[in-house]
Amino acid sequence: MKIITVEREVNTKGFCSVVDITPLVEEELKKTGLKEGQVLVFTVGSTAGVSTIEYEPNLIKDLEEVLEKIAPSSKRYHHHLTWGDDNGFSHIRSTFIKPDLTVPFKRGRLLLGTWQQIVILDFDERPRRRRFVLQFSGI
Amino acid sequence: MKIITVEREVNTKGFCSVVDITPLVEEELKKTGLKEGQVLVFTVGSTAGVSTIEYEPNLIKDLEEVLEKIAPSSKRYHHHLTWGDDNGFSHIRSTFIKPDLTVPFKRGRLLLGTWQQIVILDFDERPRRRRFVLQFSGI
Amino acid sequence: MKIITVEREVNTKGFCSVVDITPLVEEELKKTGLKEGQVLVFTVGSTAGVSTIEYEPNLIKDLEEVLEKIAPSSKRYHHHLTWGDDNGFSHIRSTFIKPDLTVPFKRGRLLLGTWQQIVILDFDERPRRRRFVLQFSGI
Repeated sequence: MKIITVEREVNTKGFCSVVDITPLVEEELKKTGLKEGQVLVFTVGSTAGVSTIEYEPNLIKDLEEVLEKIAPSSKRYHHHLTWGDDNGFSHIRSTFIKPDLTVPFKRGRLLLGTWQQIVILDFDERPRRRRFVLQFSGI
Repeated sequence: MKIITVEREVNTKGFCSVVDITPLVEEELKKTGLKEGQVLVFTVGSTAGVSTIEYEPNLIKDLEEVLEKIAPSSKRYHHHLTWGDDNGFSHIRSTFIKPDLTVPFKRGRLLLGTWQQIVILDFDERPRRRRFVLQFSGI
Repeated sequence: MKIITVEREVNTKGFCSVVDITPLVEEELKKTGLKEGQVLVFTVGSTAGVSTIEYEPNLIKDLEEVLEKIAPSSKRYHHHLTWGDDNGFSHIRSTFIKPDLTVPFKRGRLLLGTWQQIVILDFDERPRRRRFVLQFSGI
């Protein structure tokens, strides 16, 4: 078994910016030459997360609305008193969605559904260059 | 270290159908002969998820009610305009609960609590044959 | 590749007690001598979970408030009828936050953000000695 760690970055727009990184993960998987195993996707930082979704604009809008209901961006969070920040909602959403996702692959291909894409969600209140890790392990 | 990938299916009833797959995971673990390592459980598709719960009917009912509050099944989702589908709530719940869970094992046994079962949650609005992956890695 | 499984416990206060275990994970990582790989953090039991957060008291307060909105501790859950328990909210929160988190490391260091800590969340309605697993795999 081998382990290969790749650090990458994406540009995000903040405020629940959802980026489909599936093609990038597939490209990096091909480079490793691994056939069977798993890839850990991990977002570095406390205001982002990673999950899967059918990546289409209307569903992204739905997701934003539900997140807005759970942790509204307009709310006055206690966290704002700590640093004078304005992104309490970003942190809370990140703790819920979590920064890690592990996806299996076999015969060199990710075992995803046809309408299931790997997405990074940037919850921060401003555009960012968002760092994440792809760690492949397998044979 | 070895890696063993098993693809399985379960019948679900949709609408937050919660299936306890713990006995199945234990059975597959035994077949691998591995003693120490982890199993990745991954649901293929964008309307299901996997987590753990104390598997008893009343708690499942509670879970359904909380999910219904977060992403109501009766709501008109933007997603419905894309394909004429009616399962926006299923997708949103799937992105929240996420399709992956990793459980460690040692001495050939899953390190779960006594009242902690591994469950697949099918959020779709119809019964399905639901595909999932068990990927064991260890020694 | 090697796999090393460590079982540990922490004291918690219950009712969304959030414990920063980052120093403990770093200490255990150092002991393994591994340089590149990942650590699976897994909480044993159905009333706890694990995630990352910027660990500061005000944000923890925010998190408690959001969890209280999603699964109120005062609600009468169906689960209470099963065992005469009073911790339906603890179980529901656990299923949402989930018991597993996988964090990559490289050059012997966890690939976390500066303000991103690994936390165990104990949702139970009483103080507990909470068992969890750290499983390191890597080279």
